[in-house]
Amino acid sequence: MEQEKKIINTGLRGVTVASTKISDIDSTIGRLIYRGYLAKDLAENATFEEVVHLLLYEKLPDPRELNHFKKRLSEERPIPPEIHAALKTRPKTSLPMDILQAGTAMLANHDPYLADTSRDAGMNRAIRLIAEFPTLLAAWDRIRNDRKPIAPLPDLDHAANFLYMLTGNKPDEEISHFFDVCLILHAEHSLNASTFAAREVASTRAHMYAAITAAVGSLSGELHGGANVRVMEMLQKIDSVDQVEAFVNREMDEGRKLFGLGHAVYKVDDPRARILAPMSKIMGERTGEPRWYEISTVLEQKGKEIFKERKGIDIFVNVDFYSASLYYTMGIPIDFFTPVFAISRIAGWTAHILEEQFADAAEKPALYRPSSDYVGEYCGPDQCTFVPVENR
Amino acid sequence: MEQEKKIINTGLRGVTVASTKISDIDSTIGRLIYRGYLAKDLAENATFEEVVHLLLYEKLPDPRELNHFKKRLSEERPIPPEIHAALKTRPKTSLPMDILQAGTAMLANHDPYLADTSRDAGMNRAIRLIAEFPTLLAAWDRIRNDRKPIAPLPDLDHAANFLYMLTGNKPDEEISHFFDVCLILHAEHSLNASTFAAREVASTRAHMYAAITAAVGSLSGELHGGANVRVMEMLQKIDSVDQVEAFVNREMDEGRKLFGLGHAVYKVDDPRARILAPMSKIMGERTGEPRWYEISTVLEQKGKEIFKERKGIDIFVNVDFYSASLYYTMGIPIDFFTPVFAISRIAGWTAHILEEQFADAAEKPALYRPSSDYVGEYCGPDQCTFVPVENR
Repeated sequence: MEQEKKIINTGLRGVTVASTKISDIDSTIGRLIYRGYLAKDLAENATFEEVVHLLLYEKLPDPRELNHFKKRLSEERPIPPEIHAALKTRPKTSLPMDILQAGTAMLANHDPYLADTSRDAGMNRAIRLIAEFPTLLAAWDRIRNDRKPIAPLPDLDHAANFLYMLTGNKPDEEISHFFDVCLILHAEHSLNASTFAAREVASTRAHMYAAITAAVGSLSGELHGGANVRVMEMLQKIDSVDQVEAFVNREMDEGRKLFGLGHAVYKVDDPRARILAPMSKIMGERTGEPRWYEISTVLEQKGKEIFKERKGIDIFVNVDFYSASLYYTMGIPIDFFTPVFAISRIAGWTAHILEEQFADAAEKPALYRPSSDYVGEYCGPDQCTFVPVENR
Repeated sequence: MEQEKKIINTGLRGVTVASTKISDIDSTIGRLIYRGYLAKDLAENATFEEVVHLLLYEKLPDPRELNHFKKRLSEERPIPPEIHAALKTRPKTSLPMDILQAGTAMLANHDPYLADTSRDAGMNRAIRLIAEFPTLLAAWDRIRNDRKPIAPLPDLDHAANFLYMLTGNKPDEEISHFFDVCLILHAEHSLNASTFAAREVASTRAHMYAAITAAVGSLSGELHGGANVRVMEMLQKIDSVDQVEAFVNREMDEGRKLFGLGHAVYKVDDPRARILAPMSKIMGERTGEPRWYEISTVLEQKGKEIFKERKGIDIFVNVDFYSASLYYTMGIPIDFFTPVFAISRIAGWTAHILEEQFADAAEKPALYRPSSDYVGEYCGPDQCTFVPVENR
């Protein structure tokens, strides 16, 4: 029995640790489900606001509910002026994900109902955080560039409003729509590392801000949300289509990772990548910079071929692969690619935290407290004998 | 095979997920080991600085190493003035653990070597964070009370210096020693929820600040580090020894948890509690407030008896049980009990993050990415059919 429960240093890969009603992944056919609906269907037909409603309230909104929900989200966009004041104390070189982590923790300081642990208070907190994330990040990009933060425009949808606050210009319909699709596709993905971190922290009964702050930290890593930055850096390093093959071989020779290729879960192409790719193509053409998309497609093809040839294994594109070139051609600063991921994934994080906090008795999770296997020394049969410092 | 790997909603209790050289717990006999040494031996004979050296460098320092290490820690205590400026923007009602979480993320903004992922840079970062935590927290307590933060005193040891920065008075030798013992006893405890969170975030290759920020969030929960606050609130509610029995029965009647009693790991009394209790007794006598210790001892005894009688199970005191009354009689503000835990546990967190980042190939951990079991709806055999909002 004890023997079966040793799953050491595998990152819990393939280990089912929690039940959830939020999403489902069939990794063998590339099927991603949010609360019963195909993410693909949602990306093609719904808006981010509808998807957030689905994730939080377990149902797609009817027209009245959607109007009400959009109004709620829109009203909650402004962040307290004291947060602006805090951001202004930060060095301009600060990493946006570190700013987001600090900012999330600071938002807790302004929640007058922080001690309220009811479900209603939790839901309000989730909506506020989802609404505030884009404002906080756009404000940071303005502040670090010595510009005044731009107040949210209540009439713009969630996606368009972020791009507006970031650039000062209202984006056209196509870009707004593409960005909205990106937000939908990144919103939820079961127990990825950041969502797992959020649930882990929530399992101690820490509040939602503490759990989201942890998730932001987890997302920042290059093996998780940080990968979309690495993909773009890779595309820039490759620089032209005819350099792809040499690049792939060199990276493999030196044992480096090809970012955007390979996934902890999928055994086929990530279904999200196939929706992102055509948008990246269109944006490349629109902006007169088609090469990032072109390098990406050749990199996908050559990467797969060379991997198969040299290692005998199939690798697949993941969500970060085409989102990199897409965000780049949308004019999003490269170090904001991962924050943009956070703007979307916070929908899933908050849904999971609420599930962790308020699951039905049958699916009630417990405080995460695994064990470890001691492989250190004992300096003897039992333990090391303490020797006072003067005799060491 | 797949069947064996379903461990749903149990919080990974009893599941061994990682190998470590840092600590070992024998839960059946209450034996806690830091890098081969009994925590009890270290608490009775070493100083916090020696223990931090042991945890980080895998050995107790010799006299020269200890001097050098103490100097390093002491030199790294000051925090950047921009952090003070940021703290001054925070509402005075902010929870200290939220301030610590934000502050940790902000400290990353001031690390000129943030991009350096070498082991040396990691070790320097760990030492700096351990040194800065007390300064950051003491500064917050001063700022929220409209007082000027007190600069660290280089000649004071780690424990004494924190109490000095908090109160403005140099503590006497006994209090300094007691606080030092508390720091040693809380420094490390294998994969508790906060350390697990730190490792989880580090497994994405996020930087140390991001991982520590997550750990702080996890520690804040009342099922983890937040419990010492709950214990004190319980003692205050009970208020006198003759109310203990009625209190325990009432809490059990209403299905509430008795904080400080019961532990996720130990099946006997927590070995740390037996070292804390006598110090709590002495401090109670010193301050003329013996009743917190007295209520605690009666609560321990009655709690165990009544639990056995009513539920037929044995419960045991944990580390939070006597640390509450001890910190209280030391004059530490109640909402600083958990931050004090963090001041100590950061030693273990940083050691674990370094292990996660730099373990030998044989014990190399992987990105944490568990699976979940979808128990939500499909609205049909396959998935829900998307209906446009106007037709809902």
